[in-house]
Amino acid sequence: MKNTFGNSISVTVFGESHGAAIGAVIDGLAAGIPVSDDRIKSELLRRRPSSAIDTPRREADNFQIISGVFNGKTTGTPITIIIPNENTKSGDYTYGIARPSHADYAGFCKYHGFEDYRGGGHFSGRITAAIVAAGGILLPALENLGIKIGTHILKCADLADDGFDNYEKDIDALRSAEFPTISKICGEKIIEKISETAKEGDSIGGITQTAIFGIPKGVGEPFFDSVEGMLSHALFAIGGIKGVEFGKGFGFADCVGSECNDAFRIKDGNIVTATNNNGGINGGITNGMPILLNCAVKPTPSISKAQKTVDFIKSENTEISVKGRHDPAIIRRICPVIDSICAIVTADLLAGRFGTDIFLKGEK
Amino acid sequence: MKNTFGNSISVTVFGESHGAAIGAVIDGLAAGIPVSDDRIKSELLRRRPSSAIDTPRREADNFQIISGVFNGKTTGTPITIIIPNENTKSGDYTYGIARPSHADYAGFCKYHGFEDYRGGGHFSGRITAAIVAAGGILLPALENLGIKIGTHILKCADLADDGFDNYEKDIDALRSAEFPTISKICGEKIIEKISETAKEGDSIGGITQTAIFGIPKGVGEPFFDSVEGMLSHALFAIGGIKGVEFGKGFGFADCVGSECNDAFRIKDGNIVTATNNNGGINGGITNGMPILLNCAVKPTPSISKAQKTVDFIKSENTEISVKGRHDPAIIRRICPVIDSICAIVTADLLAGRFGTDIFLKGEK
Amino acid sequence: MKNTFGNSISVTVFGESHGAAIGAVIDGLAAGIPVSDDRIKSELLRRRPSSAIDTPRREADNFQIISGVFNGKTTGTPITIIIPNENTKSGDYTYGIARPSHADYAGFCKYHGFEDYRGGGHFSGRITAAIVAAGGILLPALENLGIKIGTHILKCADLADDGFDNYEKDIDALRSAEFPTISKICGEKIIEKISETAKEGDSIGGITQTAIFGIPKGVGEPFFDSVEGMLSHALFAIGGIKGVEFGKGFGFADCVGSECNDAFRIKDGNIVTATNNNGGINGGITNGMPILLNCAVKPTPSISKAQKTVDFIKSENTEISVKGRHDPAIIRRICPVIDSICAIVTADLLAGRFGTDIFLKGEK
Amino acid sequence: MKNTFGNSISVTVFGESHGAAIGAVIDGLAAGIPVSDDRIKSELLRRRPSSAIDTPRREADNFQIISGVFNGKTTGTPITIIIPNENTKSGDYTYGIARPSHADYAGFCKYHGFEDYRGGGHFSGRITAAIVAAGGILLPALENLGIKIGTHILKCADLADDGFDNYEKDIDALRSAEFPTISKICGEKIIEKISETAKEGDSIGGITQTAIFGIPKGVGEPFFDSVEGMLSHALFAIGGIKGVEFGKGFGFADCVGSECNDAFRIKDGNIVTATNNNGGINGGITNGMPILLNCAVKPTPSISKAQKTVDFIKSENTEISVKGRHDPAIIRRICPVIDSICAIVTADLLAGRFGTDIFLKGEK
Repeated sequence: MKNTFGNSISVTVFGESHGAAIGAVIDGLAAGIPVSDDRIKSELLRRRPSSAIDTPRREADNFQIISGVFNGKTTGTPITIIIPNENTKSGDYTYGIARPSHADYAGFCKYHGFEDYRGGGHFSGRITAAIVAAGGILLPALENLGIKIGTHILKCADLADDGFDNYEKDIDALRSAEFPTISKICGEKIIEKISETAKEGDSIGGITQTAIFGIPKGVGEPFFDSVEGMLSHALFAIGGIKGVEFGKGFGFADCVGSECNDAFRIKDGNIVTATNNNGGINGGITNGMPILLNCAVKPTPSISKAQKTVDFIKSENTEISVKGRHDPAIIRRICPVIDSICAIVTADLLAGRFGTDIFLKGEK
Repeated sequence: MKNTFGNSISVTVFGESHGAAIGAVIDGLAAGIPVSDDRIKSELLRRRPSSAIDTPRREADNFQIISGVFNGKTTGTPITIIIPNENTKSGDYTYGIARPSHADYAGFCKYHGFEDYRGGGHFSGRITAAIVAAGGILLPALENLGIKIGTHILKCADLADDGFDNYEKDIDALRSAEFPTISKICGEKIIEKISETAKEGDSIGGITQTAIFGIPKGVGEPFFDSVEGMLSHALFAIGGIKGVEFGKGFGFADCVGSECNDAFRIKDGNIVTATNNNGGINGGITNGMPILLNCAVKPTPSISKAQKTVDFIKSENTEISVKGRHDPAIIRRICPVIDSICAIVTADLLAGRFGTDIFLKGEK
Repeated sequence: MKNTFGNSISVTVFGESHGAAIGAVIDGLAAGIPVSDDRIKSELLRRRPSSAIDTPRREADNFQIISGVFNGKTTGTPITIIIPNENTKSGDYTYGIARPSHADYAGFCKYHGFEDYRGGGHFSGRITAAIVAAGGILLPALENLGIKIGTHILKCADLADDGFDNYEKDIDALRSAEFPTISKICGEKIIEKISETAKEGDSIGGITQTAIFGIPKGVGEPFFDSVEGMLSHALFAIGGIKGVEFGKGFGFADCVGSECNDAFRIKDGNIVTATNNNGGINGGITNGMPILLNCAVKPTPSISKAQKTVDFIKSENTEISVKGRHDPAIIRRICPVIDSICAIVTADLLAGRFGTDIFLKGEK
Repeated sequence: MKNTFGNSISVTVFGESHGAAIGAVIDGLAAGIPVSDDRIKSELLRRRPSSAIDTPRREADNFQIISGVFNGKTTGTPITIIIPNENTKSGDYTYGIARPSHADYAGFCKYHGFEDYRGGGHFSGRITAAIVAAGGILLPALENLGIKIGTHILKCADLADDGFDNYEKDIDALRSAEFPTISKICGEKIIEKISETAKEGDSIGGITQTAIFGIPKGVGEPFFDSVEGMLSHALFAIGGIKGVEFGKGFGFADCVGSECNDAFRIKDGNIVTATNNNGGINGGITNGMPILLNCAVKPTPSISKAQKTVDFIKSENTEISVKGRHDPAIIRRICPVIDSICAIVTADLLAGRFGTDIFLKGEK
């Protein structure tokens, strides 16, 4: 469905970086779920560029909900959120010179030159604000069911953050943290690293780690709609993500089964696993442990350093030194986007399994 | 859609390991595409256990096409392939003792004890034979358009294979290779490593690398139906895959943009990239370079070494030493399955973009 | 999805009239639902040609469930039913001379001559046996929830059956009736009418009426997935159906609102409507009254009377007098097919709204 | 997908009658298709209430395209059209008293009282303005390929319009007609009839007839996604439509095959049918003749005459005399909505079959 994702609960995104607005339609949510403007604002705030290491483009993200919410609650019909683009500087972009590793040229191949190229158009990270706004509705609906989702920077260059220790506490802390690491010290080092990279006119990548805590056992629709399949499908929509792994992921390559199989154990009357190398998913279905997933994030393609490239209109080699306003690293701002994508997929899987009214069960 | 994947061309899989049969329905293929029983057989042969390092369960894989093919060509209506299960030993399985890292317990949580647990049921690797049979139809249809797909073992334990050098030659060689590595010497070492692991009653993981060569530029349907999203969604259906990365993938974490951005260059009048760190995909759309993706494959969960686990029926701790017939490593047999999954997704993306008759264009 | 229908519960059909087999895959049903071979048989029996007014082709309909059922209950994974074609006489068909009002020519336009034309191929009414087999699983699952579905011939030529009087009683009677009318006398007249028509080498159409009794209030997913939209979409898959109306349907054209609006009334503490001109659906959502729908069924296109037509291979005018084995009227045999289609859509709507485990609620 | 329809080209609708805005997202259209604000305006104008026989609510329908169009052409990414609700009088509505035959009570059953009931909320005919705006983009795209779509009032009470005589001419005339009948005299009589009915505080129904002229042969995706199935699914989304028939439709009930089968003939070197009782569709696939379909439209439920009903909040019998601003007949205003729905489905079927770039083929 191209710009729509989800079976029971679906999200449709639209908009271009320098068009009138971006936005999202959330369909399939039951009626009666509280919608808090403050929560949407606070999610958008987590994604907004705000510091020296972010793009200087500062959008107010003044969203408007134009359908599907009445008297502060969902009506059960499609919820549409619009976020106007207010701070656009289209003069910064010229057409034809492909930014290396960006969508310019591939977009041209698909859209034949009719694409709205300004600011990256539909490929801009700007679109993810709509995802985050949707997350601002779905994340609290999940929390009401005891499901918490949080993402931190696991690695940037050679700097490695701590892993999750206490899921609930860590996730709560990440929600209000200025910089999304579990170790404050590591966070400061990463900020410094990004600042240095920015000064050199360069950009840097990283790895994020996400926990979905409290998701019930027995959720997921294999063969194809495994939890991993649904999550990865939606996560790869985020520009810059080039890898998704669950639990130990690529680390499994070096392991023998006896080392990395997760032993089941009875604990306080419940069945748990002693380790969680499978990231809470067996056979595509949740086993009751937290879902753990990592995303590989590539360095922002737009850098001011000179790069070799082509002018695809003139069909000739050239150089580019990307102007405009860009992030030297999206690793910080991508965290709330990942949270929101995970909320969309989790909500969809739950509604598909337990019915659309599941979200009313936690309502008092 | 749970057991159905694809928009324009879809594949539905069904079956359990020890049921009457497994199979697949392929829908949406244009009429008039040649279907070769020999090719389907040869693909199934690549997946079949055949050597000392594979499961001793040897299925003949005597498939039957019961619809959708007439006079050796597709009719344009659903193609159904049935593969009977002939060599089943259900006595090997008892219910209630969860194999660590296997779907037994998660399956119980979802299916409440009604699942066909024999041989892993619907979670068995056996189901992938249906995928490979589908690949036996789609792979040659893609080759007719100049698109070749091949997968090799990139890494197993500390043994690393060479990368692709000449895509077409390497892919052709892999198709007929006894063991799917590019370096024959590395392959022998991996076989030895697996044999040793098997002797210890253990299993081992690895990483595969896949190339989709010759795919046209401009294919992919972002925001959500990016090439990465569609491929990863379908790939994670394969039991044992716990990570998918494109191009440099998780390696991007250590990079700065100026190092890993793929410079565009004019070569022989065409626009290409000097490196292919993005694995042929920018912004979710193909850029004309080969698609490169790696899959993390965990060690087969079923090992004969004793492991701690629970009896989820009795709700008590216990031990298990998995009997039955299992592979010490699925890294060899997973390669043709990955090829077939990639063929399904590639065919779907092409048909969605260029229409269902695209596959007739290469017909002579 | 072409040959797959449904969101939460989906059915995929495959097969050609003279191929090896036809069949269906039912996906999304919860684990633990009883499956009765006897019930499937009895549904297939209702559809089978059996009397002087049916086609002389007599298929045993020896179905086999090859996946998804274990120990007499659903496993929660795809259920595949295969029905072999055993009594085929392909010599009866020649290619190129289009039977008027049949799919021969339109099929040629779509499939370019590669279609399996024997016996109408994928367009044959034979395919509906797979639908009825699926109904043999879904109808009792719905009955377990108190939902009954029944169809009778409302009209054939100028002969009009009685309407439903007592839904439950009438539906039960229709299930075991030799001929699906509510008035036995009317049924005999229709049989006579069909026999006469058959003797003249002609065929005849009619109108069916279906009731879905006991469906809960508040089901349906407008805007697009209204109850009417979902039902009509699936019903038009049945060859020969050329119209679908709900409640008063086309009769509304002659009415003023004050005559045909359904007044709401309190009855025994429940809200009901005094009349049911809307067929149990308001705004695309069930209102608690029985769903009432009529289908227009055209005369079977294949008649032995000489008809003007073309040879689309030779591109010339010609005549045809259809040989082969055909029904002079499908109005009798279409009734269980309509029941099954309605069961598929009802099950899907319920599972989408209340979760896939809804069908276990009635289990004792 | 609830509020999203279509496979290759999809439309998502949102909004409530008295909310901030209604709108639609069109996804899957190729880049480079011209979008004319004037054409969208002229389609909206055809739907707008404008005369004595329409609702006194007069919305300016000042639409805004906020994404997917750049320099007057589609960008290939989702097109979002927003139409603000400007003339709302929510005081006219009270909650709890169900308007007979309207969605009030069924909506309450589904949405549990959280629905935005003002002006009918998501069930209001107002939402169809978004459909018509989408049609304002798709209709000219189809015309560019030689496909014309037009709808007239076939019947209202006992007044019957002429049928199509010259499709192209009639469709062109309908597009600019003040009242959508082929016979001007019949139109005047219908207007008079509606006026009289309105004076009595009542409403009236009717039947529309639609032609899709110029659609290529061989389009449609049976078994399930037949042309009839896809069209009816989308058409039943329009509030008030309670029946859809193709060609002779319910008239087939009285026919024998030899009378109503459409004889194929060679005409000017092309294969055509002598009659078009099948409405251009055989076996769910177009046969090259114009698609002909009729829709049954029930009388507007909201009438000022006193009606028996219930207060579903108080659970008691009561009476209602509907105030607010309503149409005594929607039969005029529904015609452009049907045109637009047919354009959406036709565009989707074409893009699915021939690829998304099909719409660029007619571009000069």
